[in-house]
Amino acid sequence: MDETISVVLFSGTDDKLQSAAVLVAGAAALGKPVRILLQYWALRAFTNERMGKSNGYCPEAGDSGRAAFEAAAAGAGLASWADTMRAAKELGDVDIAACSQSMDVLKLVPADLDPMVGGVQGVAAFYLNAGEGQIVFI
Amino acid sequence: MDETISVVLFSGTDDKLQSAAVLVAGAAALGKPVRILLQYWALRAFTNERMGKSNGYCPEAGDSGRAAFEAAAAGAGLASWADTMRAAKELGDVDIAACSQSMDVLKLVPADLDPMVGGVQGVAAFYLNAGEGQIVFI
Amino acid sequence: MDETISVVLFSGTDDKLQSAAVLVAGAAALGKPVRILLQYWALRAFTNERMGKSNGYCPEAGDSGRAAFEAAAAGAGLASWADTMRAAKELGDVDIAACSQSMDVLKLVPADLDPMVGGVQGVAAFYLNAGEGQIVFI
Repeated sequence: MDETISVVLFSGTDDKLQSAAVLVAGAAALGKPVRILLQYWALRAFTNERMGKSNGYCPEAGDSGRAAFEAAAAGAGLASWADTMRAAKELGDVDIAACSQSMDVLKLVPADLDPMVGGVQGVAAFYLNAGEGQIVFI
Repeated sequence: MDETISVVLFSGTDDKLQSAAVLVAGAAALGKPVRILLQYWALRAFTNERMGKSNGYCPEAGDSGRAAFEAAAAGAGLASWADTMRAAKELGDVDIAACSQSMDVLKLVPADLDPMVGGVQGVAAFYLNAGEGQIVFI
Repeated sequence: MDETISVVLFSGTDDKLQSAAVLVAGAAALGKPVRILLQYWALRAFTNERMGKSNGYCPEAGDSGRAAFEAAAAGAGLASWADTMRAAKELGDVDIAACSQSMDVLKLVPADLDPMVGGVQGVAAFYLNAGEGQIVFI
């Protein structure tokens, strides 16, 4: 049985990153290894330049959804996705890699990325690490 | 072999909910247990207040995509996502739970939710129910 | 062990199709069978009428994301998603089917689809082909 959860993290909106962080933290708390491959807009959200800034919400969130998120965050009821992801990485076996092709498209170098990101990886290495475990695209 | 299909249902647009309902109904018809965790905009779509109302489409649908969906629904060629989901729940072993963290962010209580939703669940319980089966994020 | 990767390809934006093509090509290069079910906007992107045209980007891409993609494509640093998908199909065991329900909603017939698409399939057949392998929704 392979308990690894492999996440292709593509989306860069605050709400999807929040969902991803909660799912990663939950898996880490249960002792499951988590392997994350950052692509495109998620990768951009993990750059030093964007870290801590808002990247918007899914269109269907609407004004009321955005307001609910912002109120929960302001009221300390909701940790930021980045803090949740950092805590998951400290707590469990969580590995975050940047997709090499996405690095090329966005013209990024490793020094541009938040220290949470442990390296740059191709898709083949991602699959090999995934083994027989579950793969989730977010 | 674990045949359970676990779905993290995040998106709340009519087209994604339609796709999710078709996938859930198909799995249920094959006798596979389905476990759904509703997050954010999908959870909001399952509230009594939103049930039966349109929640828009993915941006790439465009005017022609929206028109195609609405024409198919009006011509009785397409059951609503909610009716398909209800039928799948009656037909098979389908369990729908609200994500506890999303309930907090959106300030919802169980009485706000459609009767299809059987309870409130954390991410840890979701993973435990998922076992070795497939996990899909929609 | 079932190495099949089954992809429900729903999204039709150029960036998500690019991500899907890279993931499919990577799996094919590793010798994994890939089974793709095209739904709604992804299916529309595989029609003869849309093939080679842009279908936009995820909203969070923004102007800078769009510009990065277009520059990478113009500089020959990035093959189109369609060319990558075609190459994956020639290289490996990749099967692309149109979802029958999506064909009905969009009023398409098989002759409308790019020759990459090998047939029309229901959700039940998709699950049966997926076996115990991973399922990814994009």
